Order: sequence, then C-alpha cells, then structure tokens
Amino acid sequence: MFESAELEHKLSKSEYDALEPQLRTDLLSAQFELLESKGFATVVLINGIDGAGRGETVNLLNEWMDPRHIEVHAFDEPTDEERQRPALWRFWRALPPKGKIGILFGNWYSDPILGRAFGRIKKAELDQRLSEFNRFEAMLAAEGVLLIKLWFHLSQSGQKKRLKAFEANPDTRWRVQEADWEFYEHYDRYREVAEHVLRCTSTGVAPWVIVDGSDPQYRSVHVGRTLLDALRRKLDFLAKGYKTRQTAAPLLPPVDQRNLLNALVLNQPMDKKEYDKQLEKLQGRLALAVRSEAFARRSLILVFEGMDAAGKGGAIRRITQALDTRQYHVIPIAAPSDEELAQPYLWRFWRRLPRRGKVAIFDRSWYGRVLVERVEGFCSEADWMRAYAEINDFEDQLVSAGAVVLKFWLSVSPEEQLRRFQDREQEAFKRYKITQEDWRNREKWPLYEPAVCDMIDRTSTENAVWTLVEADNKYYARLKVLRTLVTRLEDALKK
Amino acid sequence: MFESAELEHKLSKSEYDALEPQLRTDLLSAQFELLESKGFATVVLINGIDGAGRGETVNLLNEWMDPRHIEVHAFDEPTDEERQRPALWRFWRALPPKGKIGILFGNWYSDPILGRAFGRIKKAELDQRLSEFNRFEAMLAAEGVLLIKLWFHLSQSGQKKRLKAFEANPDTRWRVQEADWEFYEHYDRYREVAEHVLRCTSTGVAPWVIVDGSDPQYRSVHVGRTLLDALRRKLDFLAKGYKTRQTAAPLLPPVDQRNLLNALVLNQPMDKKEYDKQLEKLQGRLALAVRSEAFARRSLILVFEGMDAAGKGGAIRRITQALDTRQYHVIPIAAPSDEELAQPYLWRFWRRLPRRGKVAIFDRSWYGRVLVERVEGFCSEADWMRAYAEINDFEDQLVSAGAVVLKFWLSVSPEEQLRRFQDREQEAFKRYKITQEDWRNREKWPLYEPAVCDMIDRTSTENAVWTLVEADNKYYARLKVLRTLVTRLEDALKK
Repeated sequence: MFESAELEHKLSKSEYDALEPQLRTDLLSAQFELLESKGFATVVLINGIDGAGRGETVNLLNEWMDPRHIEVHAFDEPTDEERQRPALWRFWRALPPKGKIGILFGNWYSDPILGRAFGRIKKAELDQRLSEFNRFEAMLAAEGVLLIKLWFHLSQSGQKKRLKAFEANPDTRWRVQEADWEFYEHYDRYREVAEHVLRCTSTGVAPWVIVDGSDPQYRSVHVGRTLLDALRRKLDFLAKGYKTRQTAAPLLPPVDQRNLLNALVLNQPMDKKEYDKQLEKLQGRLALAVRSEAFARRSLILVFEGMDAAGKGGAIRRITQALDTRQYHVIPIAAPSDEELAQPYLWRFWRRLPRRGKVAIFDRSWYGRVLVERVEGFCSEADWMRAYAEINDFEDQLVSAGAVVLKFWLSVSPEEQLRRFQDREQEAFKRYKITQEDWRNREKWPLYEPAVCDMIDRTSTENAVWTLVEADNKYYARLKVLRTLVTRLEDALKK
Repeated sequence: MFESAELEHKLSKSEYDALEPQLRTDLLSAQFELLESKGFATVVLINGIDGAGRGETVNLLNEWMDPRHIEVHAFDEPTDEERQRPALWRFWRALPPKGKIGILFGNWYSDPILGRAFGRIKKAELDQRLSEFNRFEAMLAAEGVLLIKLWFHLSQSGQKKRLKAFEANPDTRWRVQEADWEFYEHYDRYREVAEHVLRCTSTGVAPWVIVDGSDPQYRSVHVGRTLLDALRRKLDFLAKGYKTRQTAAPLLPPVDQRNLLNALVLNQPMDKKEYDKQLEKLQGRLALAVRSEAFARRSLILVFEGMDAAGKGGAIRRITQALDTRQYHVIPIAAPSDEELAQPYLWRFWRRLPRRGKVAIFDRSWYGRVLVERVEGFCSEADWMRAYAEINDFEDQLVSAGAVVLKFWLSVSPEEQLRRFQDREQEAFKRYKITQEDWRNREKWPLYEPAVCDMIDRTSTENAVWTLVEADNKYYARLKVLRTLVTRLEDALKK
C-alpha cells in the first residue's frame, strides 16, 4: 500500500518552478468552471502521518486557488453541540455545496484510526465503522459528490528526519511537541492500522491516493495534479452532457518519473556456483516446511506475475522441485474458457483454491483484470477500478481461512527481455515459447508499467504483500523468490 | 420489515387456477430467452422461517420451468472439503453460469443468522460478515448477475398453525421434527436477528423480497411473479442493447390486492368527550416524560407523513401543546431551497437534528425521496431504490446516538380527504390550506399507494418502526399518535 510513497520522490526547486505556474493556472480555471457550472461539490479528505505536510498542503491549495470558494474545516475534539448528535453530524455540517471545494482536515477517519492504534477500540468495532464509512461515501458519490481522499505518508525514518529538521530550525521549533515524539514511538502500530483502514475503504468509487510527504515540492505538485485531474475528468464528463455520478480517477504516474519498477536495479549479481549452493539449502528448508505438522493446517497460494520471459516458469520450477508432486498444482492462466467466461472473473480462481496442506501456484492470476484487461481495454475503467477492492477482499478471505498468500512481480528490463526473445527464437526447443503476441505485448510496455505500479500500490496489503523481484539475472531472481517464500512460510507456520 | 408479510395474504384455489397457466408460460419463455441470450446468470436465494414453504416453492419452480436449466443447491453442514477453504467457497462453486438459474436453498446468510440467533456469535462479528456479504453481492451485481433474495416469512402464530397442520395430517407428520418446535420457541429472537440482517443487506442493487408464506397459492404466485418480473426487466434491458449491470426491481404489489393501507379500517370510533378525557391524560404523561431526567440524555425525533389533509398538522399540535416552546421545533418540509438543492438530499435533515433533551417534529420528511420524488419522477429509480438503505442507515445513526425515532403514517380515505378539501374551500380561514396542487396530488393516489407500502416494508426497522394511523376520525388518529408516542417514549426512557 505504501510502496510507492516510500520511494522518497523528489522534485528540485527548478523542476518545481517550471511546473508550478501552469498547474496553478489550470487549477484556478478548473475551480472557476466548477463554480460556474455548480455541477458538483468537491470534498478533499486530508489524513496521514504527522509531519507529512498536511497543513502546508492545505495552505498551498488556498494560495493556489481562490480561497473564497474553498472551505477548510479542521476537526479536533467534538464540541458539546457535536457530542449530542450522531458522529457524522459534524461532517455533514461541513459538506460544501455544489460548485465549491471543501477540505476536511481531520475527518471521519481520524478518530477510528487513532482509537484503534492506541487500543481504545477493537478490530470488530473498527470494521463496523469502516463499513459505515463505505456506505456513507458510496451515497455521497451516488449523489454526485467528487470525493478525493488523500493520505500523506512518511516512512518512520522520514518522519524522524522531518521532526529533527523542524527542531533544528529556531523558526519551526514550535511545531514539534512532545506528543509528536510520543506518536513517533507508535509509528509501526499506526502504520499497520492505517494500512488496514486504507485497504478496507479504498473502493471503486472512492479510492485513497497516497502522497509521499517527504519532499515539499514533489508533494505539492502531486496533490495539485491529483486534484486537477479529478476535477477536469468530472467537469469534462459533465460538459459532454453525461450524467456521470461516480468518477474515481486512476492514480496519476509520479511527476518525478520515479516509480516502483524503475527504482529497481534489475541486474543483481549472483554466480552459478553460489546459486547452486544456496538453491539447495533453500529447497531443503522449503521441503521441511511443507512437510511439517503445522503446514497440514494451512495452505500456500503463490502468485507469479511479470512481463513475458521474465522467468516465471523457471522460478516456479525451482519451487516445485522441492515439493511432492501430490502436494501441489501449477495453474497456468491464459485466456478464459467458455465456461469461465460465463462466470464472474474471480470464479476461475475460486475453483482452483487448494485445500489444507496443499500448494497452488498461479502462473499469472486474477491480477490479469488490472493488467492485461486494463491495458487491452477488455473491461471498462469502472470494472478494473473496482477490482482492486474485490481482489483485496478475495485475498483477505484466503488468509482468514488459513492460507499463506505470497505474490511475486518478476521485473525484467526491456533489453533483457529482447535478449531472451531472440534466444528463444534461435533455440529449436524453446521456439514454442515465443509468439507474435509476445512481440505485440512488448510494444505495450509503457502501458503496462503504470498498471503494474497501481496494482502493487493498491493490492499490497498487510495480509498479502507483493514482492518485487529484480529478474535480469535469473539466478538472483530465483533465489530471491525462494528465500522470500521460505522465510515468510516459516514465519507463518510459527503462528 | 415484515409488515406486509404478516397481512395473511390469500389466493383462492380458483384465483390461483386462473393465474397459474399464464404465469408458467411466461416464466418458461423468460427462462428460454435467458438460456439463448446467455446474457446473465440468475441467482435465487431462499431463506426464511421454518414451515414458510421454502422447499415447496423450490419444487414448484422446478415444475414450472425446465429443470434442466435450473440448478438447485442445498447447503447443510460444510463438508470436509469445504471446511478447508474460505466460507464463501461452497457458494462460488454453486454459482450458475450465464443463461442458467441457480437456486441456493440455504446460503451465505443461513449460518450467521442462526449463529447470532442462538448466541454463538456477537453482534459486531455478525456485522462484519454482513458487510462482507454486501461487498460480495455488489461485486456479483456489477458482474451482471441477477440476484433475487427471497425471505419466506410467517408470524409466530402462523408458524404454529403450519406445524400443527403438518402434525395433524398423517401424510405430512414426518415433516415436523422436535427441532422445529425448539426453533419455534426461539421465534422472537430469530425474527429480531432476521430483521437486522435484512435491513443491513437490503441494498439498492440487491434488496430482499419478503414473501408471506402463510398461504401456498398466494406464496407461489408471488414468488413466480417476482422472478418473472426481475427476469423480464433485465432481459428487456439487454434486448434494447443497454449494458445494464445492476437491475434491482421494485417490489411488486400483492397479487391479492390486499396491502398495508387497504387492510386498515380507517374510520375508527371515538367521540369528542372520550377524546377530551384521554387527550388530557396522554398530554400529561408526555409532559412528564420530556421533563424527566432520563430525557435530558436523549432526544426525540418524530416523523409525520400522510396524504394531504390526513390530519398531520392537527396531530402535531396535540403533541406540542404538551411541550415547552423552548424544547421543540416543528419542521415543515416543502420543496427544498437552493441551498438545500446544492447538497445530498439528506443534508437538509441532518442540519435540523435536535440535541439532547430536545424534540424535532418533521411535518413530512426524508421520506419525500421515496414518495413524492418517486411518484413525480424527480429522481431516477436507482436513486429511490438506494434511498431505502440510506435512510435506514441514517435512522440507525440517530438511534445509536440516543435519539428516539418514531414515524407515523396518517392514513385517510379518498372520500374523507374529499370532504376535508371541500370543507377547506368553504371556510375562509382554512382556504389557504388548499391549493390546485392538492387536487393534482389527489389524482395520483393510485401511484402513492404502492410507494407508501414499499416505504413501510423497507424502512420499518427494529430501531425505527412505522406506526400506521387510521385517520378518518381525527379524534381517534390524534389519540393513537399520542398514545404510541407516550408509550414508546416511556419505554425508551426506562432503558
């Protein structure tokens, strides 16, 4: 969930200066178009980690746009008046009318997240609240409200850096209070709760946008662009006369071009000799784990995704070598059968779920919905936007039923892919592995990259985390997969 | 929720025989159209009270339609295979493909309802499950599945009658087991849990249909028509080339023409003398209750709905006479202001919520959404269909925050309304109360009647029940309102 936001995105002063004037102009004109059309109300939720720049961003938005048509509401302890009504009353009062932008700094999420992080409410109670929020937000969306939910994020070290920097400067020292450091001590717990909340409330109609708060320039442009993009999409739809109620925008690619995939160093060192040695050890540990008594009460579900020739098959074989053939199934996912097409898209995966003590290895998977189906336009934007939450629900059910779910993205560079394609064409026994379609897919690389990044940000959850595998060196990649698998599985079996 | 289903609807043998052949023909042809178009899958959920005819109905549907294209699945204790996967796995396996009809007799609702009724799971856990089901069903609907959720209902006396009848007949005696009587003992608890479950899972895209199970002929025709109507609507949409994903049907009016409104005897006896005596007593009790210490921690929200000249104003005045003027607000609801139109439709009501110790009396209310807005076409069917759940959520929040919510439908006959209209036109000081619009609304009576019945069935909940008031005699009506109010309020304050 926070993968992209922990990449420490940056924008230099000069890059920022080059982007800012246009962004301001565009935002201002979108704001006036909204005001004149009175087409819908815009609600911006501001949440996140202390020190991640929430307040600064709100000030900036007020500076960039016409503050007379922005209503900023900050919520602290409920007043006497508020305490005497339902909890959502104070937020209903703060809803902006059509044509205006309301910024809710602190909102319905603040209290439940804090309450859970500090152990004041139980998980089941938190979940009840979250499901109320989902219904509330679905209603707002159906009523035409544009809802933009921003989560300002910092890694723990990032938070420390920010607090220290404030303290070091006499002008900003006042901003750091004892409570901030106390909070910092609870970072892990807070992050864990936040991840759960964001997963459960990132719906197709109102997804969260996670903002890397570490660099002020980057953060400002990212928020500005997100707001602009959402406003523009909805304004343009309305101008065309469409009566679109629900318009959640896909994530924008990072302004600084730095993303989860290109941040990886794909060619990692690993020689054959060391590989053979480690492979044997890891396979041995895997064999022990799946034969253990503890595993008889669990199951293992592995998902492999990656561009063609990324080495999925090879990595899978190194796993199955350690397994008893009666214990596992490798399930290659290609185009669905007629029978599968006659069912909801997740059905073909439900039918292949392993029972206890068994291993299911998906060579491509349900993520096709947000990868190939998105890129090729096989389903509508609304369909793949809702799929993130549906997939998270699905995996959550798997994990609740005792499965260990591990997901691997094998990341290969275009150059290395080309070498492997050519290699396949030349070797007679590999020729079946390369088709015209592989070449066509290769051309769509630039479309896959943002789809993959969105997928990881939106579906890497506390229950089922993605592992990104640098895969230009096959030896390295296979070992990373195996090591991750063995470590995670051993950990899970201890619980 | 169960109001209509407890009217003991009936259809004579001859009425049934007159309807059945056409219904069968239509159902069969809809089934074949579905089969040929392969446009969508149909899932029928069968739940309800023991003895309410669930099994018989399933048999009948199989008889009426081509059983080769109906898949009936009954679920009992999970098998060994099933226990080793997520709880929904067994239901995924049973999903019918596009073109077919799947009947799930016992399904995802059965276990949580029983579990909660017999105290095996807590409320918060139940609610977690229900929110999973809502997400699951929203996904199915978005994937194009037609979901028809049937709840077969019997009143407790109805259930007793059915069980006794089975026992009395040597041919059916085998059907009654000890467990059935044990179950009967828990009727109240089961009904209470069922009501909560039905309220929380009656969504705009997958609402429950409650079937009165007391009379086999009525029940069969009601189920047949509901299924036919839902199939036809979706088939016709698809035939027109619309890509409608989500088509939940409004409730069908009862086949036997007996509904909540025409089942009332509107002219109830009450003379002026007795009225004056009782009025004084009830007003005294009300005055005491709202001045009590317990009321300082609660609030009171009254909703009055009814056709024009039903006597809402008069009933309200008899209440306010007992209140301190600083303690209450009467809020007349007419067409929304510009400011209100710029907000979600519930906003205007949220802003008028009373604080503790106060009384808000809504003369017409948020129910305008499912009455006048539905009848006049001011909002789309999808809008008013989702409004039932939104309103239930809203009232649930009020009650959770300590409010006592009471809702009155004042039911006047067309004849009595006419008399009152004419009276108003003749009396100079009442003339302002009657306009051309009142006459126009009067002509729409036949459209209002089903809207009112749907409203009561879908929004009379465990937290906020509707009271139907026979209002042709004003004295009787005012006393019934006051007596209900006083009794309920006194009860609530004891808690």
